[in-house]
Formats: sequence, C-alpha cells, structure tokens
Amino acid sequence: MSTHFHFTLHKTEGCARLSTFQTPHGAIQMPAFAPVGTLANVKTLEPRDLHEAGCELLLSNTYHLYLRPGHRLVEQFGGLHRFMGWSGPILTDSGGFQVFSLAHKRKLDEDGVTFRSHIDGSRHRFTPESVMEIEQALGPDIAMVLDECADPLNHAYIVQALDRTHRWAERCKKAHTRVDQALFGIVQGGIFPELRLESARFLTELDFTGYAVGGLAVGETKEEMYSTLDVTCPALPVNKPRYLMGVGAPEDIVEAVYRGIDMFDCVLPTRIARNGALLTPDGRLNIRNAQHAEDPRPVQADCACYTCRNFSRAYLRHLYKAEEITGLRLGTIHNVHFMLELMRQIRAAIAEDRFAEFRTVFLARYQISNQEVRHQQRERFLANQRA
Amino acid sequence: MSTHFHFTLHKTEGCARLSTFQTPHGAIQMPAFAPVGTLANVKTLEPRDLHEAGCELLLSNTYHLYLRPGHRLVEQFGGLHRFMGWSGPILTDSGGFQVFSLAHKRKLDEDGVTFRSHIDGSRHRFTPESVMEIEQALGPDIAMVLDECADPLNHAYIVQALDRTHRWAERCKKAHTRVDQALFGIVQGGIFPELRLESARFLTELDFTGYAVGGLAVGETKEEMYSTLDVTCPALPVNKPRYLMGVGAPEDIVEAVYRGIDMFDCVLPTRIARNGALLTPDGRLNIRNAQHAEDPRPVQADCACYTCRNFSRAYLRHLYKAEEITGLRLGTIHNVHFMLELMRQIRAAIAEDRFAEFRTVFLARYQISNQEVRHQQRERFLANQRA
Repeated sequence: MSTHFHFTLHKTEGCARLSTFQTPHGAIQMPAFAPVGTLANVKTLEPRDLHEAGCELLLSNTYHLYLRPGHRLVEQFGGLHRFMGWSGPILTDSGGFQVFSLAHKRKLDEDGVTFRSHIDGSRHRFTPESVMEIEQALGPDIAMVLDECADPLNHAYIVQALDRTHRWAERCKKAHTRVDQALFGIVQGGIFPELRLESARFLTELDFTGYAVGGLAVGETKEEMYSTLDVTCPALPVNKPRYLMGVGAPEDIVEAVYRGIDMFDCVLPTRIARNGALLTPDGRLNIRNAQHAEDPRPVQADCACYTCRNFSRAYLRHLYKAEEITGLRLGTIHNVHFMLELMRQIRAAIAEDRFAEFRTVFLARYQISNQEVRHQQRERFLANQRA
Repeated sequence: MSTHFHFTLHKTEGCARLSTFQTPHGAIQMPAFAPVGTLANVKTLEPRDLHEAGCELLLSNTYHLYLRPGHRLVEQFGGLHRFMGWSGPILTDSGGFQVFSLAHKRKLDEDGVTFRSHIDGSRHRFTPESVMEIEQALGPDIAMVLDECADPLNHAYIVQALDRTHRWAERCKKAHTRVDQALFGIVQGGIFPELRLESARFLTELDFTGYAVGGLAVGETKEEMYSTLDVTCPALPVNKPRYLMGVGAPEDIVEAVYRGIDMFDCVLPTRIARNGALLTPDGRLNIRNAQHAEDPRPVQADCACYTCRNFSRAYLRHLYKAEEITGLRLGTIHNVHFMLELMRQIRAAIAEDRFAEFRTVFLARYQISNQEVRHQQRERFLANQRA
C-alpha cells in the first residue's frame, strides 16, 4: 500500500468492522456510504450539501465522464476534485458496468470491449489500459479495475468471463502508475461460491489496495446476495477495505455490514428522491400520496437534515405535485442525509458492541420495498445483455 | 398607514429615492427587487439561498396558490411565511395579471371575472372581495388590489377598463381588513398620460399604503414604458412606496429607479437562468455556448455568489449540456445574486449622490438583449387576450 493510503481496522463485532481509510483527500470513516455523482455532480445537490450531510466519499462514473465532458477536459482542470469543487475523497468505477448495462452494440474480445455511446451512438473502445488512462486522468482517490459484469445466475458464462476479468485485473494493475490513487480489484463469480472463492484468491495475490465485490444487486434475490457475501468476505484480506458495489437499500447495507463489508455506493437515495420516495426508519414514504396533503409533520421527526428542520410533509407534497425542482432537491437532501446518518449509527453501534442488536431493531422496523423492483431490475439488465 | 408599516424616505437624487419600508416581517431597503416564488417557492432555490443573496422581499402569485395548494391550506399552516419557511417580507399579486394572461375562457363583468384554470380547465371566479379574502388567507405582508391588465396600446378599451379597475380598487379597499397586511393600489392607463394621471389621482384619494404601476412590461417599447413612468411617478404620493410590477431587466430597473420607482419584481433572473442565460455587468452570457467549454473563469469575476466563488464556466456549461438540475440551480443562484447586488449598488449610489453617474456607466457597459423578445412577449399577451 502506498504511503498515500492507510487502512486502520479499529474493531470488529462478529464480522462487522469499524475502520478508517485514509486517502489523499481525507479520511473515510467506515462502514461508509458514497452518494453517486454520475456526471461529476450528485443530482440536485452541491458540494456544500454533501459536506453538510457528513459525506466523506463520492462516486463518479468513468463511462459517463469519458463521454462528457471527457476525461481530458477534467484532467485539464486539475482532476475531478477541482472540476466539481469537491474537496473530499472520490471513487470512480471503471465504466465496465455501464458498458455492459447501458451502452449499445457491445462487442467483447480478449483485449477489451467495443461499444456505442447511449447518447449519440458514436463508437468507442475500452481496454484495461485505456480505462486506467482515463481513471488516472480523472484523478479520483480510488480507481476500480475494468471487469465484466455478467448475469450472476449464468454459471457457464460466468466461468468463461471470470478468467478474462482476472486477466484484465492483471493488466489494470500493470497499467496503473499513480501513487496518489488507490486501485481496487473486483471479485466476480456470480452467485457461485467456488467461483467467488477462486476470484478472491486470484485477486488477493495481485495485492490491490482494496477489494470490491462486483456483479451483485443486478437482479439476484436478497438471499443470494447475502449468501454470496457470506462466502466472499472471509476470503478477502482482513487489512484492506471491502466494497460492495451498487448497494444500496438500507436493509442491504445493514446485512452487508453484518457480513463484513466496509463501503457502499448507490444511486438509490438520490434516484428515488426524484420519484418522491423518501427514506424513514419505517421504510419509504411516498410524499406524493394524498395522505400527506395536510400533514404538518416533517418527513422524519428526529431527522436533523435541512428539509426536516424546515418543511412540512404538506409543503413538500405541494412542491412535488407542482413539479417544482426545489421539491426534488429537498427530497434528495433528506435521503442522502438518511443514508449517511444510517452509516453513523452503524459505526456507533459497532464501536459500542451493539451492532447485532442495532441490526435486529432496524430490520424489525424498516419495511422493505416490494422485491418486484429487483425482478424488474434483473429483467432490464438481462434485456440489455441480450441487446 | 397602520402602525405595522412605516415608509421612510432617506434621501433623493433627482427622482431616484433611497428609502426603507418597514413591514411585520422586517425592513425592506429600497429600491428593492423581489424574486418571484410563484408557487410559494422560488424555482430551484430554498429560503436559505435567498437569505444568502440578501433578499428582503419575495413575490408569490395569488392565482397559482389559489389553484394549488389552495389558500385555505396555506392559511391552515399559518400563512405563506410558515408554509414555505421564509421569515422575511412577502408580497402577493392579486391574480389579475394571470387571469388575463394565462387562464382560459375569461369572461369579464362589472362584478368580477370568471375563468377556467390553465391546469385542469376547472371553472373559477375572482371578484375584488374574493381576491381580498384569498390574499388575507395567504397572509403576505403586502397584498395587491384586483385590477384588469389590458393591452397598454388600446386607448378605447383602456378608457373603459380603467373605470372598472377603479371601482374594483374601491371595493378591495373596503373588503380588506387585516391591519398586519398592507394593501397597495395599482395605477393603470396603458401608455396614455392623461389616463395614467387620472388613475394616479383617483387611487391617491383612496389612500393606499403603497402604489404600483401596472400594465407595463407587457409588450410596449422601452421608450413607451419609460415615458409612462415619467408621467406617473410625479403624480404619486411622495411618502409611500412605488412599485413597478413585472419589471425586470437590469436596464429597466436602473431607468425606473432614475424615474422614482422603489420596488420591482420579475421572473426574469430565475426564468432565464433555467434557459442558460446568466447575468453579468456586460449583459447576458449564454452558458451553453461552445466558447465556454474550456473556460476556467467564473461567470462573473468579481461576483461573491456561491456559484462564482466555486465553479468555472466550463463546469457550469457541462452541467447545463448534461441537463443536470444542479446547473439550473447554480445559474439561478447567480442571477438572483446579480439582481440583489445591482439593487445594493443602486442604493449605495443614491446614498452617495452618484446614481446619475452609476446609471450612465452601467448602461454604457450592459448590453441590452434583443428587443425581439419584447415583441414576442406582446404577441403572446395579445394572443391570450383574444383567446
């Protein structure tokens, strides 16, 4: 590990870990949740909103930034931090997930993947080397290797994809040279224990600064996701951060921390806020519902966010019904605050050896959204895989 | 004037006036500009943004609030201030302008006006008495009388409309009872000096707390607007605030202050921000233009707003091109700050007896937008008048 990064495991409770990951742009208290700023911006928010919510890590998407405004422009502006005015740690994904779930006319070969932009159909190519060049130009604190995100339930295909993903991980490691940027490997293998173990073993030998568990939250059941973590986490190095990509829902975060995960990212809090779904300890509240029309209470009684400190459900509902942008923003402020507050509560619970109890109490109260959404997610993912 | 309101004229320079208008929710330093929060919300902003910009007066629209969420709901929440979380002074218009420019199937009679909602076509009726009831329920610091906003160039019609508007003003005065709310009269009369003088004389006798100049900025030329102010302002009481409704553009504000106006409101800074037009001392800058793609400078070099202190033109252009909501918001923050800073500069100039010079220097530098826009505005207004 370079001198720019330092992982400290403070204590554990069962598999749950309380830790700090030091980066060139500051320390990340873990378990940590990273809001997603796809295009160098968390939708509807500004950097000061994120600082106010206690955000210590942002994710931005390499695929999207590569297409616009382009990694060379961002580099010219001194990297993502200066371009977007965010002084804290940033992580970029490799763009692999978007190439496999969003781009058009994907064509995969041993060397890399050719695809067409979802914006204008223009032709592009990612290789492990080109992605390392892009991520180093973007300049986040943490970069991810290029991997293939395949259908987690298709064993035959995953076997074949896994070897290629491992060869790509080796090439990324070789091509990555910035010492002020950490490179994380990504364990793949779908929902198959032996493949996850093989992947964890292979990548551990490559000695990355941290490890992600990839290829989950793309449509498998919660049980399949949790059991995959049960198998994978113990196979990862104890002294390095563990990152569950694309997760997520509050209940999944609690369950993944319980199984040994340290880092998360997801568009969930920001995306559902724009649809009027606001997070509370009881589950999601749809602010557009008529029942809130005359409700003087804040979204969440004990919440310290700007939205809950200042506005009633009735006012928020009015803004959403009238399609006022400010409504989407106030909802986003609340949801991001809710997620970061959840992480603070999780960390406090582990510190005080009561995380197991916290998990029980939280999950008993929090009403999980319809799993239907997950099935739709999987259908969409597979439809694009076939496209 | 009730004890809740107090107007102090500190000094004049020519016709320009430096004054303070005390209201139940605080003092308004004048000349003042009120950003528009149509639906109890300035689009993309929050109350704290307005405080940060130094905003001392907000306008909200009676017509829109009456349709949704309804004045009874707002009243139930303790009025607009508490409903929207804004602690400073608020002014509501009477809804007249929207009924005559936005609502459908308008039918005017001596007693009032019947119209259909532009949202769902539902049938509604405004009378001077019902509008006073609505504005008193909404609870702004300043309410406006119901008037008819007619084509300012149509002499024959204006003559007829003016008498009705005056009878409505009398009825509003009689129906208005809240002592913690000021009621302003509205001088009409199009671009015709004798009608403006007659209207000013009639309304002055009714002894309102303040006076608006209405029926301008609806498509007449700038010269016609300025000469109407030249005639009207001297006919208004010296010891009461004078409000030019629906204005506006920075150059119009400077010219109207020069002619004795104290208050303004307009959607211009917020609306054009959402179209990517950002205000600078040199005129409007279209942030979407390719020339800004790699420009590291802020929108305005000497601007103290959050946007200019933190972001480059290149980053803002990226947000606008990618249709990120945050871009619209950062543009709005800048434009509102620009307008309120302009008012601060105007007040400082009058205080120091250099407003005439300020006007010359400002207008020499500020490039006025194409008057084409005004003609389109007039065409739209007339089209709806005929509809």
